[in-house]
Amino acid sequence: MQKSGTRMTDLQQQINFVLELDRLKGVYRQALVKKDNNRQENSAEHSWHIALMAQVLHQYADEPVNIFRVQNMLLIHDIVEIDAGDMFAFSEQQDLDTQAQKELAAAERIFGLLPESQSKSMKQLWLEFESAQTPDARFAKAMDRVLPLLQNMHNKGGSWVKHKVKKSQVINRNDHLEGLAPRLWSYVCAQVDIAVENGWLKNE
Amino acid sequence: MQKSGTRMTDLQQQINFVLELDRLKGVYRQALVKKDNNRQENSAEHSWHIALMAQVLHQYADEPVNIFRVQNMLLIHDIVEIDAGDMFAFSEQQDLDTQAQKELAAAERIFGLLPESQSKSMKQLWLEFESAQTPDARFAKAMDRVLPLLQNMHNKGGSWVKHKVKKSQVINRNDHLEGLAPRLWSYVCAQVDIAVENGWLKNE
Repeated sequence: MQKSGTRMTDLQQQINFVLELDRLKGVYRQALVKKDNNRQENSAEHSWHIALMAQVLHQYADEPVNIFRVQNMLLIHDIVEIDAGDMFAFSEQQDLDTQAQKELAAAERIFGLLPESQSKSMKQLWLEFESAQTPDARFAKAMDRVLPLLQNMHNKGGSWVKHKVKKSQVINRNDHLEGLAPRLWSYVCAQVDIAVENGWLKNE
Repeated sequence: MQKSGTRMTDLQQQINFVLELDRLKGVYRQALVKKDNNRQENSAEHSWHIALMAQVLHQYADEPVNIFRVQNMLLIHDIVEIDAGDMFAFSEQQDLDTQAQKELAAAERIFGLLPESQSKSMKQLWLEFESAQTPDARFAKAMDRVLPLLQNMHNKGGSWVKHKVKKSQVINRNDHLEGLAPRLWSYVCAQVDIAVENGWLKNE
């Protein structure tokens, strides 16, 4: 009886976590969804998109990656925004630092809704993603950063134009691809040049 | 040179597929997002939600499932709606049959954007999901069907109330859980009883 009782509590905790996730659908990013009247993208649909993109592109990782771990990192990486909100990638460093503190507190609360062992392993996976030290985390980060570039290239510069983003900012944000996935890096560099030619990125 | 040229073509095909996926964010379902002013949910964010839910709940599958395959089925399962649109789960059988034909054509076109081997394996995975014969596919289907129940229970009946759905329809739609994940099945049955008591489901 004790065992069964404990398990039911685990299930209720898990369901509470699943329901909490619904709130990520109301966190909006700077990226625009071209095919849905250029409305802002939310972090839930963004997470779906990059998890699937990682599946499609992981062959280009020069270091072997565990795509299962990469995809789960990407599925959970933005959950903290339920509490902390989304912050534009090219914000001031001071704001990004404050955001990092908020996200850590959010991770404690939200992953803390789960039974202990799941809570620990999900939080660990999220911290690994944030630190971007392992090949899996670095590849996951790369996917998170490349997709907005593809979306902006497909949408006349999209959020770059709106926020007057510089070429050097996009290059710096993606340059870990150089060692990690050289073929994708070449592609990114070529796209950035086109964006500058078209006036979508400032040539600085 | 030939090899390098061919690979670049593969990458372009893959990027075209990734960009095509953006359109799933504009396919709206009957489910409502309570925490975002009860707007309709789109199929991209829904796919994210169930892929993560599967990760959290797969311990309840009585038959062993490969959670990596399950999650990828869930990430791709609705892509066909880019062409075919979403159809409410409790539509007439004739409409559901027509929809199945549209979805098959959509799978040919959309997965066909990918390089051949990826195209084949994704289409195969989608067909496996649709057939719901393997433990992985059955568990994936179960996740797809349980989440709307959780959302409706959390939202005063949500889309059930709007469409005057019957208890028997929800039970029939979820009853493969009985053998697959008995603990989840018990939970679903208890929730359905509460929904009837609250007048959210018709007692038929």
